[in-house]
Parts: sequence; C-alpha cells; structure tokens
Amino acid sequence: MVAQARAGRRDFLRNAFAAAAAGLAVPTLVAQTGPAVPGAGEAAILELPEHSRGLGQGVATDGYGRPSQHEANVQRRPSPGLTQTSQSSVSFAPLQSMFGIVTPSGLHFERHHQGWWDIDPTRHRLLLNGSEPAMLRRPMVFTLDALMRLPSVSRFHFIECGANTGMEWGNVAVPTAQYTHGMLSCSEFTGVPLITLLEMAGANLQRGKFVLAEGADGSSLTRTIPMQAIRSGEVLVAYGQNGEMLRPENGYPLRLVVPGVQGVSWVKYLRRIELGDKPYATKDEAIHYIDLMPDGRHRQYTSIQECKSVVTTPSGGQVLLDRGFFSISGLAWSGRGRVKRVDVSVDGGRNWRVARLQTPVLDKCLTRFSLDWVWDGKPAIVQSRAIDDTGYVQPGYRQSRAVRGTRSIYHNNSIQSWLVQENGEVKNVQVA
Amino acid sequence: MVAQARAGRRDFLRNAFAAAAAGLAVPTLVAQTGPAVPGAGEAAILELPEHSRGLGQGVATDGYGRPSQHEANVQRRPSPGLTQTSQSSVSFAPLQSMFGIVTPSGLHFERHHQGWWDIDPTRHRLLLNGSEPAMLRRPMVFTLDALMRLPSVSRFHFIECGANTGMEWGNVAVPTAQYTHGMLSCSEFTGVPLITLLEMAGANLQRGKFVLAEGADGSSLTRTIPMQAIRSGEVLVAYGQNGEMLRPENGYPLRLVVPGVQGVSWVKYLRRIELGDKPYATKDEAIHYIDLMPDGRHRQYTSIQECKSVVTTPSGGQVLLDRGFFSISGLAWSGRGRVKRVDVSVDGGRNWRVARLQTPVLDKCLTRFSLDWVWDGKPAIVQSRAIDDTGYVQPGYRQSRAVRGTRSIYHNNSIQSWLVQENGEVKNVQVA
Repeated sequence: MVAQARAGRRDFLRNAFAAAAAGLAVPTLVAQTGPAVPGAGEAAILELPEHSRGLGQGVATDGYGRPSQHEANVQRRPSPGLTQTSQSSVSFAPLQSMFGIVTPSGLHFERHHQGWWDIDPTRHRLLLNGSEPAMLRRPMVFTLDALMRLPSVSRFHFIECGANTGMEWGNVAVPTAQYTHGMLSCSEFTGVPLITLLEMAGANLQRGKFVLAEGADGSSLTRTIPMQAIRSGEVLVAYGQNGEMLRPENGYPLRLVVPGVQGVSWVKYLRRIELGDKPYATKDEAIHYIDLMPDGRHRQYTSIQECKSVVTTPSGGQVLLDRGFFSISGLAWSGRGRVKRVDVSVDGGRNWRVARLQTPVLDKCLTRFSLDWVWDGKPAIVQSRAIDDTGYVQPGYRQSRAVRGTRSIYHNNSIQSWLVQENGEVKNVQVA
Repeated sequence: MVAQARAGRRDFLRNAFAAAAAGLAVPTLVAQTGPAVPGAGEAAILELPEHSRGLGQGVATDGYGRPSQHEANVQRRPSPGLTQTSQSSVSFAPLQSMFGIVTPSGLHFERHHQGWWDIDPTRHRLLLNGSEPAMLRRPMVFTLDALMRLPSVSRFHFIECGANTGMEWGNVAVPTAQYTHGMLSCSEFTGVPLITLLEMAGANLQRGKFVLAEGADGSSLTRTIPMQAIRSGEVLVAYGQNGEMLRPENGYPLRLVVPGVQGVSWVKYLRRIELGDKPYATKDEAIHYIDLMPDGRHRQYTSIQECKSVVTTPSGGQVLLDRGFFSISGLAWSGRGRVKRVDVSVDGGRNWRVARLQTPVLDKCLTRFSLDWVWDGKPAIVQSRAIDDTGYVQPGYRQSRAVRGTRSIYHNNSIQSWLVQENGEVKNVQVA
C-alpha cells in the first residue's frame, strides 16, 4: 500500500502523516516511482517515469538558472492595500518555505521608497565629502571599478525592516510567518569597509561623529549612522550579495550594510557619504521611522534590531493533518551580537525547552533553531524566545506593551505565538 | 575631471586604474551622477539621471527576482566541443565574477549524465533497502513530505566535480578560472542525515559497510559510499540548497550530500539507498571516474577532493590596465577538513606571503582568501597554495606529475599559475 502525496510542498504538514503512516514497506522500487500505482504487478514495470527512461535537458539551457516549476508558489509577496502605491511598499519573504539561514536573492524582501531601478553601474558614482572642509581633507569620488579593486570583506548578516511585525502592535494578526516576519532576509554581503574609504579621503576621525548616507533614487533617502559601528569596520559599502552583485531591488550597484541596524539605514543605490559632527535629523529619521510611545511622545534614532525569533514550522496557514512527530524549526537573531539560546514552548509559555542551534552561530546573523516535538492532537500554542550574548531576553507582548503601548509601527520584537488547533490548522494568536 | 568607466564590471581591472587616478576630486555630486559630464557648470543640474528624478518599479514586479540586466554576462557556461551531447556535459561557474563563498544557485555548475529533469516532487520516492534481508530489517519508502518532517540540519559545503581542472593534466591551458576551476560551487545544504533514515529502517550498522546510492534519471547513476562518513552524520539526504529547494539541474527534489567527496557521489534525483557489506563497483566507479596512472594501471575509489586553491582575481582573461594597488582574491578548500593557511606568490613560487582568510572558516567548505598587492608593471606569476588542518600542502605540477603522470582526468589539485604580462593581460600558464 502506497501513499500518494496529494499536493505540493507547501502543504507538506498535511501530507506528511499519511505518507509516513502508509508508505513504509513496499514490494519494488519500480512501483513506487510509477505515476499510478495500481499494485506491484508486472505492468508497473512499464510505468517507469519518463525521467528514468528518456533524455533530459542539456547543460546551460539557462546560463542563469531558475527554481523548479513545482516551486512557483514560493514567492515574495506584497500585502494588498498596505500602501497606496507599489513603488512605496513592501514585499515579504516566504519564511515558512525557507531552510537554513541564507535567503535566496530572488526571495529577498523588498522595501522601496520611490520604486526600484536597475542603475547602469558604469555611470554610478559614490562621493565622500565632509560637512565642512576640515572634516574630510580630500573629497573623493569612486567608480564601482575603483571600489572593487580595494580590499573587501564578505560577511553573513541579517537585514530586517524596522517595521517588521509592525501590524502586530495593534493586534492585527496577519495570517502567515511571511506577513508577520517576512521583512527579514539574510545574505553573505561583500564590500569595502566604510572606514577604509574615510581614511583614504583624509577624514578627521576625532571630529567626525556621524555619517550621512544618501541614496540615488528619487526618494533621496538619507540616514544618519553613528561613527561607532563604522570605526569597528563592520559597516560596509557593499556591492556583493550571496556571491553575485546586489540585485536591483536591493540597491544595485551599491548599498550600505549596517549590521544589526534596521534596514532603512542600509541605504540603497548609495551615492554619497558625508562626515559630520552631529545627527542629521533627516525626513527619514525625524518624521518616518520613529516610535510612538503611550504618552504621545516619540522616540527617534532607535535603530538597532533587538533580539527576536520566530517559529516558521509550524506557523500560520500550515496544517498538521494528524498527531505524531514534527521538527519545530525557526529563526533567531539579534542586532546586538550572537544568539546564545533559544527556548521553545508548546503550551503558550508555561514550559520551555532549549532548542538546538544550527552552527555556525554568527554575529548579527540569522540562526536556525529546531526542536523535536510529538503532537498529541490537542490544541498547542507554539512560541520561541531568543536570548542573545548580551543576556537580553526577547520579551512577551505584556512586557512590550507596558513600555511601548499599541500605537507603534517599528521595533516589535515580541514573542510570536502560533495556535495549533485540534483540526491541525495553525493560526496567529497573541498571548500576553 | 571625471573618469568614465568604459565597460561593464567584467573588465573592472582594465577600468579601475583610470577611475582611481582621475576621479578623485570633483566640484559637485550632480555632475558626477549625470549621464554626460561636460563640466561642472549649472547645466549639469538638469542632467540628474532619471532614477534620481522619477518613479521606479513597484514591489514584487517579479515574485522571484533576477540579477541586473547589466550582469547578463555573468553566466555559467559550457565548453563547446567538450562532449558530444549537451545532456552528458558540464557547465562551469563564473568564479572570476563571484564574491565570498556562497554560489548563487542560478550560477551553480552543472554536470549531467543523461540531461536534467524537473521531477514532480509529489510523485518522487526514496527507497531504503538492504543487499540482503538481514542487512536492513524494515525497507522503507519515503515521500518528500515524510522526509521533511524529520529533524534536518543545514551546513555549508563545497561541491567539486572530480574532473575539475582535468584539462590541465595534459597541459591544455584553458583561458579562464571559469574553465580551469568552475566545476566548483558552495551552498548551504539542508537535509536529513542519512544515518537517521538507516536507523529508522533498522539497518544493521555492524554488518553494513557500504551504501549504494542510485539516481532516478535515465543514467541510473550509482555510487558506493563508505559507511564511515555516514556514521559521522555528515552525509545528508538533502532537499534544500541556499534556503530554497534544490534546483532541477542540481537534483531536485532530492540529492545526496557527501561532504569533501567528488560531486559524482552526490547522487542527484536520489531514489534508492541500499546498505551492503562491500563496494559495488558500478559502471560509474569501475569504468568512469578512475585515475589513469603513468604505468597504465588505474586507481579506483579515489573519492576525496584533496586540498586545493585558485586565485580568481587576477585570473585568466582579466586585464590590469596599469600598475598600482590590487586586492588578490581567491578560493581554497579541502575535502579533508578546514583550510588552515593559504600562501600567495606573485613571482612564480620563489617567495610566498600568508593571505588573509575570510571567516568563518568551515569544514569542507570554500574559504575566501585575499592579499594586498601593488603591481609594479612587470611580468608576474600569481599563485596560491593551500594547507588544510591535516597539514597537507597543495602540490605543484612537478609533484603531481611525478605521481600521476599526464593521462588522468580526475583529481587534479595542483597549484594554478596566472601570468600577468607587461601589457596587463592575464593568462593561464603552467609552472612546474
């Protein structure tokens, strides 16, 4: 007796049990791989699938390959109605369908302020200047070619939009991990440390306290970056992402990489760096990307993405068809450093078990965690709680709301809860 | 005065000097970003590029993104005439255009034995059986869904075809790093340790000494894998690659991952695992993938990819337009473990300097190295020599040929030499 999987991978939890329960002992391989499996009679021999008989496609059919046609449903997706125009909007990465820590660049989340462009790299320039002449002795203009002959580094880092999980502040329980946490991606970025360029330009690193980073797209997005992270060498003027050039949607040909800091500061289409001695209070940090507090005031320059985690399997929209073994899996990260531990609860936070962490656990990078679980068929609330190497513990909603209220958009790192219902359907719930 | 880069990134070495020399001090940013730069007069203000004035494209224009149109030249490429049909051939990854250690899946090298297929994952099965009933108590068939609910791991590993750099045995100096070393890629693979499946199936792990792995494509490729690596847990039945499902060209929906071992053993379209007590001597290991020795005999089961490295910048086909600073960069790896050190020479092996290693340095994974270099404009022979944590030192051609002769195809890990000529052109040369 053979289980036929009835749908694509995105329903795998639904299909998994039937297969595991039924497909354990079979007479021949041939019957298993045949398209229809009436039994194990000799007729099944003739039903070897075409790919086991025929001649497939040749090499380099596509000089740049694409995913399987059977994975067409794994897409980054916008949230209809979230913004008035698609050029000032967001698309979310399908976290519930992803493995490990690397985000395929084709699925990297998007956030544009005035749409994306595919800029000709031979005509793009990066200017370094000072807020006054004494701040930087030799203003410099770099072509991409000039940048690429300088010493570079490659590092794995997460990037998260400050507004990720923002809808949940107001208890709008969006349905899937893609929409709750999908403004999150992780890549190996390659570029030149910004400090190298500042030193080449004769920057006054005593007087210079802040940098203004400016993008070349129509939004002229500008952000202030404190010199502290730049001095450490971790801020990069990056051209590479996962082994190739940045994608146009992610700032091709140049973007700033500011590890641990919200995505808006990773300025795309980077065209200018100015060294100054005070924060710039630009529109993108004075009006936007501020945190509304319960007393009506707002916080500004809250840039760092605090320690956070989310279970991606099981998560909202998935279905567990029946009880039995599952591997709970998810992602944890901290803008302050490394993930030290992740706890997982399946009873809404009464009991916690320590999850396995996938190695290597890297600085300001996603960390994959997992935990074995046997579901008994009763309602279960699955949560994860990450702790970073500063000792900071990811808060629950009660804690977060006590400080932040419910009117914020940005910097929600509260514990996510997924309710597994008796019928196996998983939905987003908030647990104080 | 402004340098206009005259060509795409692939010529960056040619363009870099002109830009670095000329583009250092300019009056305004606007003039720099304008499409034509007649001067820094006020007219230049009107020449802000369109992307700094207009509205770009919206989010999720493509639910699965593609590289910039300006990077269309960065492709995996076949070697015309290398094989009689494209279905039993190779395409090479463009190492000279890549950064860091991750290979974008769209550029992953290909090696097919009877073409590639996009197999429907809901109809694919993996059978585990024994060479005799006592070897494995419960033959099992897994659907993909059943596999995906088991505990998985994700690990970064290189994969290299045993024939990589094979043309060089006979001193056929192919022109570029893509063709000398491009049957090499590196990904984060996700899957279930094979040992988990064998234990579930009641394998006799005392009697079982070897595993036969069989693919579902028409070539029915079969390889023997010793139990040693399987027992350690590092051999995976993998479905994930760089965060998403395997690509069809790389074995979707299942392939074996055998870290450190030549690519042919990473059986694609994996449909069967048999546990036995002796090597299987299949066609793919008795006739193919053997090493011809100088005395006419051949070596069999030489599976592990020994320690190796290659400089990718500067490398064959690139051009250094003028003297000055360059960052030498390349890749090192070892099928035995971690890269411990990489030495770089710019004088054909008389003097060596120790290169920087990009962290993290991972087990059986690519490691990026780099070294600062000021080219004086004279002919230079650039080489790299990797040493792994077993103490093994990558050999030169004299050493390799003394043992292996010149008639082999497989397992050439000799030191690669690139000659930088006075005119800046880089070409492939062999240095004993």
